[in-house]
Amino acid sequence: MGETSRPRLGVAMIGYAFMGRAHSQAWRVAPRFFDLPMAPDMAVLVGRSDAAARSAAEQLGWREVETDWRRAVERDDVDLVDICTPGDTHAEIAEAALAAGKHVLVEKPMANSVAEAEAMVDAARKARAGGVRSMVGFTYRRVPAIQLARQLVAEGRIGEVRQVRAQYLQDWLADPEAPLSWRLDKEKAGSGALGDIGAHIVDLTQFVTGQRFAGVAGMLETFVKERPVAESFSGLHGKGGSERGPVTVDDAALFTARLDSGAPAVLEATRFAWGRKNAMRIEVSGTSGSLAFDFEEMNVLQLFDATDDSRTSGFRRIIVTEPDHPYTGSWWPPGHGLGYEHGFTHQVVDLVGAVAAGEDPTPSFEDGLHVQRVLDAVERSSADGTRWTQV
Amino acid sequence: MGETSRPRLGVAMIGYAFMGRAHSQAWRVAPRFFDLPMAPDMAVLVGRSDAAARSAAEQLGWREVETDWRRAVERDDVDLVDICTPGDTHAEIAEAALAAGKHVLVEKPMANSVAEAEAMVDAARKARAGGVRSMVGFTYRRVPAIQLARQLVAEGRIGEVRQVRAQYLQDWLADPEAPLSWRLDKEKAGSGALGDIGAHIVDLTQFVTGQRFAGVAGMLETFVKERPVAESFSGLHGKGGSERGPVTVDDAALFTARLDSGAPAVLEATRFAWGRKNAMRIEVSGTSGSLAFDFEEMNVLQLFDATDDSRTSGFRRIIVTEPDHPYTGSWWPPGHGLGYEHGFTHQVVDLVGAVAAGEDPTPSFEDGLHVQRVLDAVERSSADGTRWTQV
Amino acid sequence: MGETSRPRLGVAMIGYAFMGRAHSQAWRVAPRFFDLPMAPDMAVLVGRSDAAARSAAEQLGWREVETDWRRAVERDDVDLVDICTPGDTHAEIAEAALAAGKHVLVEKPMANSVAEAEAMVDAARKARAGGVRSMVGFTYRRVPAIQLARQLVAEGRIGEVRQVRAQYLQDWLADPEAPLSWRLDKEKAGSGALGDIGAHIVDLTQFVTGQRFAGVAGMLETFVKERPVAESFSGLHGKGGSERGPVTVDDAALFTARLDSGAPAVLEATRFAWGRKNAMRIEVSGTSGSLAFDFEEMNVLQLFDATDDSRTSGFRRIIVTEPDHPYTGSWWPPGHGLGYEHGFTHQVVDLVGAVAAGEDPTPSFEDGLHVQRVLDAVERSSADGTRWTQV
Amino acid sequence: MGETSRPRLGVAMIGYAFMGRAHSQAWRVAPRFFDLPMAPDMAVLVGRSDAAARSAAEQLGWREVETDWRRAVERDDVDLVDICTPGDTHAEIAEAALAAGKHVLVEKPMANSVAEAEAMVDAARKARAGGVRSMVGFTYRRVPAIQLARQLVAEGRIGEVRQVRAQYLQDWLADPEAPLSWRLDKEKAGSGALGDIGAHIVDLTQFVTGQRFAGVAGMLETFVKERPVAESFSGLHGKGGSERGPVTVDDAALFTARLDSGAPAVLEATRFAWGRKNAMRIEVSGTSGSLAFDFEEMNVLQLFDATDDSRTSGFRRIIVTEPDHPYTGSWWPPGHGLGYEHGFTHQVVDLVGAVAAGEDPTPSFEDGLHVQRVLDAVERSSADGTRWTQV
Repeated sequence: MGETSRPRLGVAMIGYAFMGRAHSQAWRVAPRFFDLPMAPDMAVLVGRSDAAARSAAEQLGWREVETDWRRAVERDDVDLVDICTPGDTHAEIAEAALAAGKHVLVEKPMANSVAEAEAMVDAARKARAGGVRSMVGFTYRRVPAIQLARQLVAEGRIGEVRQVRAQYLQDWLADPEAPLSWRLDKEKAGSGALGDIGAHIVDLTQFVTGQRFAGVAGMLETFVKERPVAESFSGLHGKGGSERGPVTVDDAALFTARLDSGAPAVLEATRFAWGRKNAMRIEVSGTSGSLAFDFEEMNVLQLFDATDDSRTSGFRRIIVTEPDHPYTGSWWPPGHGLGYEHGFTHQVVDLVGAVAAGEDPTPSFEDGLHVQRVLDAVERSSADGTRWTQV
Repeated sequence: MGETSRPRLGVAMIGYAFMGRAHSQAWRVAPRFFDLPMAPDMAVLVGRSDAAARSAAEQLGWREVETDWRRAVERDDVDLVDICTPGDTHAEIAEAALAAGKHVLVEKPMANSVAEAEAMVDAARKARAGGVRSMVGFTYRRVPAIQLARQLVAEGRIGEVRQVRAQYLQDWLADPEAPLSWRLDKEKAGSGALGDIGAHIVDLTQFVTGQRFAGVAGMLETFVKERPVAESFSGLHGKGGSERGPVTVDDAALFTARLDSGAPAVLEATRFAWGRKNAMRIEVSGTSGSLAFDFEEMNVLQLFDATDDSRTSGFRRIIVTEPDHPYTGSWWPPGHGLGYEHGFTHQVVDLVGAVAAGEDPTPSFEDGLHVQRVLDAVERSSADGTRWTQV
Repeated sequence: MGETSRPRLGVAMIGYAFMGRAHSQAWRVAPRFFDLPMAPDMAVLVGRSDAAARSAAEQLGWREVETDWRRAVERDDVDLVDICTPGDTHAEIAEAALAAGKHVLVEKPMANSVAEAEAMVDAARKARAGGVRSMVGFTYRRVPAIQLARQLVAEGRIGEVRQVRAQYLQDWLADPEAPLSWRLDKEKAGSGALGDIGAHIVDLTQFVTGQRFAGVAGMLETFVKERPVAESFSGLHGKGGSERGPVTVDDAALFTARLDSGAPAVLEATRFAWGRKNAMRIEVSGTSGSLAFDFEEMNVLQLFDATDDSRTSGFRRIIVTEPDHPYTGSWWPPGHGLGYEHGFTHQVVDLVGAVAAGEDPTPSFEDGLHVQRVLDAVERSSADGTRWTQV
Repeated sequence: MGETSRPRLGVAMIGYAFMGRAHSQAWRVAPRFFDLPMAPDMAVLVGRSDAAARSAAEQLGWREVETDWRRAVERDDVDLVDICTPGDTHAEIAEAALAAGKHVLVEKPMANSVAEAEAMVDAARKARAGGVRSMVGFTYRRVPAIQLARQLVAEGRIGEVRQVRAQYLQDWLADPEAPLSWRLDKEKAGSGALGDIGAHIVDLTQFVTGQRFAGVAGMLETFVKERPVAESFSGLHGKGGSERGPVTVDDAALFTARLDSGAPAVLEATRFAWGRKNAMRIEVSGTSGSLAFDFEEMNVLQLFDATDDSRTSGFRRIIVTEPDHPYTGSWWPPGHGLGYEHGFTHQVVDLVGAVAAGEDPTPSFEDGLHVQRVLDAVERSSADGTRWTQV
C-alpha cells in the first residue's frame, strides 16, 4: 500500500552513529503520526566502510548505501541531505549538497569555526534563491515543553525577559577512565562541552527569549587531560585500553552574558556533574512571571504567573501532553509522555512541511552561525582571562 | 536492502485505534533498535470498514487490509495475531487465532469476564502443546524502571515484601461533559476504571512482588451517571453533542487487599483525579528497603536501601537509562529518556524472542486470567457491601 | 519588663516527654510572635518522679512542679490543664480538670476508647455551660498549608469533594529490633499506627473536607509480634536489651471509607514504610480542582485549578509563607519556612484566643469523639474480616 | 526554678527588626533544647526610640532597654553584644564592644566595605588575646543539611571538589512597586542582592568546600532604578506612597569564579526571580560524587555517590532529621522538620559553647572579611566590564 498521493522526498543521510540512529528513527516515524505533505524516502545511507554501512542501513532501514558522500549528494533520487557526521566535515558536505540543489539538514553544532559557519551561510543564501532549504539540527527546540515556553514568552505571558539561567549538566566524563572519543578531539569536534552541549543552551536561550546574545565572559576548563584510547565503542560509551591520549577540548564551560535587551544571563555546560545525566535546564525570569524547564522531566514545563492571586500562586507543573500543546495531539493521550527521540521526529515534520510549502525552516544557518559566534566569543573570552567579549 | 537472514514473522493486527497505533509503532520500531531473531512483517490490518482500514493501514504502515478478522486469522502469511479491539471481542478472536495455530498477543484487560478468560486460558494451553504462543499486553511491565523494580525485589534488595500501595490516577473524565465512548459502556469494556487502569496496577503489583492477590475488599463508584453521546473522536477525546446516554461502568475503584504472603495492599484507580494525567504509581515496602515508581516520571525508579548508613540514606532517584538497565542500552545515552510507547516496543522484542526461542512469553493468559479474577473479586465485593472476597 | 496589661493564663502541663517538649515550646514562643489577648504563665509541670520532673521543668521552662496531677488541677494559679500523657490517662485527668473549672487541652488521640471519649464529651459539655473550654490537640490542622487547604475547599475553589486519598507513612518500626515503648502497648496507647498517626489523617480528612466519615472497611496488621524491651529512651528512639516483650497494637492500618456526602476515600497509616520519615499526605479531588499536601514538604500546598486554561494548567506548588497565608505573616518573610513545632504554637494562639473571647476552640471534644468512633469502626471492621462498618 | 548551676551570659542585642526577632528566638529557645554550658540572660535590647524599644523588648522577651548602644556595650551585666543593625553601623559597634571586652556576634554581611571589615578583624584579633570571642552570623551554615554537606566533603565522600554552582533566588523586588527600604540604600546596606543574599552563597561555598575564592568575573544589574518611598513596614514588606526615590544598590549579581584549588564556580543572586521565594541552592560536584541543597527543601540534602553500583545509583534524598545528623537529635523525631529560625538557635548553641570552652567560634571575623573581599572583587569586576579580578 503506497503513499502515492504525496510527492516523494528522497533523503540521503551521511553518518550513522548516535545522531544517525536518532535521525533514522525520525524519518521512519514522522509519517506515521503526522500528516506530512511529502513522503520521505529513506534512500541512501553513507558511510566510509561498505560493510559497516550496509549493516547500518539494514538495521536503520535505508534502501541503499554509498561510501562516498559526494556520490550521494549527486544522486537524482536524493532531494535532501541529512548530515550526521562530526563537525569538521559539516561545511564541506553542506556546501556541496546545497550547490547540487539538495536541501540540507545539518546536525549541531553547525561547524567547528565561525569561518566555516559563515561560508555555510553564504552557500545557504545562494541556494535559498533557488528554492533550496537549509536547517540546523537543534532538536531540543522541538521538545513540546520548549515550544510551549517559546509561545508563552512570545505571547507576553511572563512579560519582558529580565534574566536567564541555563545549565547543561552531564556526568559521562566524570570518571577519568572514560575513554577518548572523537568528541574529545578538537580537530573533529571543534570544542568539548561548549560546542556539544553548551551550544544547545545557547540556542535554547535565544529561541525561548526571541533574543540573541550580545556579549559574554567565559571560562573553559579541562579537568582530565589524558584518557585511555578507546578500543571499542557503543553509543557514547567505550571501553578503554592501556594506551592514553590527550583530551584537547574543554570538559566544562561557564559564562555570564547579556542578551540584546541587556538582560543578564548565566550559563554552564559540563560533563562532570556526577549524578546529572542529561540535565539541560533553562529558567527565564520575566517582569510578570517565570518559566523553568529541566530535560530530566522533559514532558513538564514550570510556569509561575505573577498575576495569579498571591494566596494561590506557585510554579505550575504543566504536563505538556495535552491536545492543545505543540505536537502532542498527534501522539498519545494526556500524561502519556514522549521521549528523547521525539524531538527529532518533530524536526522532520517541520522540515518536510517547510520544504513542501517552499518556506525556510528554522533554525536557519544564520541562527546556527550566531550560536557559533557565541561559542567563539566564549572561547576567546576564556583564552583572554575571562575578558568581556562582544559576540 | 532486506533482512533476509532472519525468519519472517507475519503479523495481523485487529483494530487500529489508540492501541493499534501504539502496537504498530512497536512492530515498526523494534527491529531498528533491537537485534530480533525474526523479522516482523506488518502484513495485515483488520477493520470493519474497508475505506477506514485502508486509510489506517497506509498511515500506520501495514501492507494489506481485511475487513473480517476471521479471514486474517486464516491467512497463510499471518503467523501472529495482535488483538487491539475492545474487550468484548477478545475471547472469540483469540480462540479462533489459537485454533488456527497463530501466536496471539491480546491487549489488556484480557477479557470482560472470568468465564471468557478461562476459556481463553484453555485455548492457550491446548495451543501451547503445539508450540503456539500467547501473551497479554500489560505493557507497563516493560517500562525499564518497572523491570528494574522487579529485578531488585527478586534479588532481595528490599527484603521480604511487607506492604504495597498502588494508584492509577487520571482526570480525563473529571469533566462531566466529557463524552461517552465505548470505554464507558459495560458491554464493550467490561468495567471502567477498574478494568482499564486498575488492571494495570493489579498486574504490576503481582509482577513486581512476584506474588498474587489472595483477597480484596473493594468499592466502585460512578460519579457521573450520564454523559453526552460523542459525535466524533480523536484518541481518548471526543466532542459531545446534545444527546445524553448512560455511563454503565465505574469511574473509580478502590480496594484493600492481601497478597499470597499475607502482605496488605491498598489500591486505587480513578479517572476523576483532577491534575493527575497518567499517575500510575506503585510503592513496595519491604523488610530492608522500599521501591517507588510514578509513571509521571517514567524513567525514574526510587529506591530506599535500609542497609545504607543512616546518615546518608535516602530515596535514590535512579534515572533508569544506563547501559546496564533493562532495555535501555539499545536506545540512547544515559539521561536521554524513553516515552510511553517504548514499553510496546519492548513487548514486541520479548514476544518475538520467545516465539523464536520456542518459549512461552509473559504475561501469560494464566497471568491475565488471574488479573481478571482480581477484578471480578473487587466487583463482587463492591456489590456485596465491600465484603472481603477471596480471589 | 512584664506583660502586665494582659490577663494571666496559668497553665499546668501533665507529662513532659515528646509532646510535653512540643507543648512547652508552644507556650513559650506563642506570645513572642503573636499578639495574644492573655499572657500564658507556664506555672506547673507535672510528673510522677519529683527529681525527673524538676529537671524537666528547668529544661523546659516551667516555674514549679507537682508529682500528683490532682494537686495541679486544683491549684488556684492554674487556669488551663494541658494533658500530654499516654492515652489511657486522658479521660480521668480531663474530667477532673473540667470539673475543677479548668480549661483543657488534651493531646490526640483523645482517649483509648469510644466510651472514654463519650464521657469526656459529657464533661466538656457540662463545663462549657460554665464558660470552661476544651480542645483536642490535632496540631497538624494548624500547619499553614493545611489551613489554606481548608479555606480553599470551603471557598469552593475545587468544587464539590469527590474523592480523598490520605496516607501517613513512617518507618520507625520497620527495623524489627526497634524496642518496645508504651506506644506499642495496647493498655497505654489504645492502638498502634491507627490511633497514633491514623488519627491524624482521619482528622485532617474531616477538617479539610468539612465532612465526617460515615463508614469504613479496614484492615489492621502487626508485622513484628515481639520486640526487645527498651532499656533507655530518647525521644521515640530507645535501645533494646536482650529481653523481649509482645507488641499488642497494630503496625499498619488501611481502610476504604465513605464520607457523609458519599465521597469515597482510601487511607493508610503505617510505621513500616522504609524511607518515609513522616510522610503525612492528603489529596482531595473535587469537581473543579484538586489539593495535595505532604508533610515532608510542610510549607507547600499543591493546587490544581481545573478552571485554568488547559494549555497552562498544572499543579501549583504554593509555598505557604506569604503574608496573606494563615499564621505565616507573624513569622518570617516569604520562603523562610516553618518547622514541625510551629503547629503547636498556632494551637496555643488559637486556644488562648478562644479562651479570651469566651468561645469554644476547635477541634472540640465532639470532634475528637468522632475521630475515636472512626478508629473504633476500623478496629471492629478489621476484627470482623474487613466488613463494612458504620461509624 | 533557676538555672543556677550554669554561669550566666548576659546578652545585649542591638536592633530588633527582622534579624532581631530571629536572634531573640534563638537566645530564648537554645537553652530549652540544648544542654548549654552557660545560661544566656536576655538582658538588654537597644533601639533609638525608647517607646519602640520598650515595646519590642516586651514582645521579644528582653529584660531592659537602652536607647544608646554605647551604654549597653559598657554595662557590667552584658557579656556579649549581638549586632542586628544595618551594615553601616557594624564596624563601630563591634569595635567598641570588643574594646569593652564583650564577645560579639555580628550579623552578615559583616561590614559595608573591606576597609571596615579589616578594622573589625584587627579589633577581633586584639580582643582574642584577652579571651574575647567574635563571630559573624552566617546562620545558613547551621542548617543541619549544610552541616552534613560540609562533613561529607571533609570526609572525602564526594572526592576532590571539581565544580560548584550556587544560586540565591528570591522575588521580593520583582514587582517594581515594591517600596524602598534601607536594604536598597547603598549607604545603609553597602550593596543589594550581592551583599544581602550573595554573601550567603559565597560563605556557603567556602564553608562546604573548605576552600576560598581566588578570583571572580562579575556583573551587577539594577532592573528598577526608582521605587515608591515606603510609608510603613512590616518585615521585609512595606506599603509604598506616591513619592519615589532612587535604588542605589544592585538587584542581581552574577559571577563566575575560581576557588583556591582552581575549581570553577558559577554563582547568582537575585531578588527578581518570580516564583522563587528563598531558593538558596548549592551544588558541589566532586571526583566521586555530588551534593545538592535547596533551601526551599531545607531539611533535605541530595547526595550522589558515584561509588554506588551504577544500576542503583541516583541522587539520595536524605531527610536530615535523624539522631545522628547535626543538631537534629536535640529536636524532634525523624521526619519532623526544622524551620528557618532553627539555624539561629544552632548559632547560639555553638557560640555559647565556644565562649564557655574558651575557643574561637566560626565563622570568624577573618572568614567574614574574606567574604567581604569576594563581594568587593565582584563589585570591582562589574565596574570594570566584568574583568577577571583577584580576591
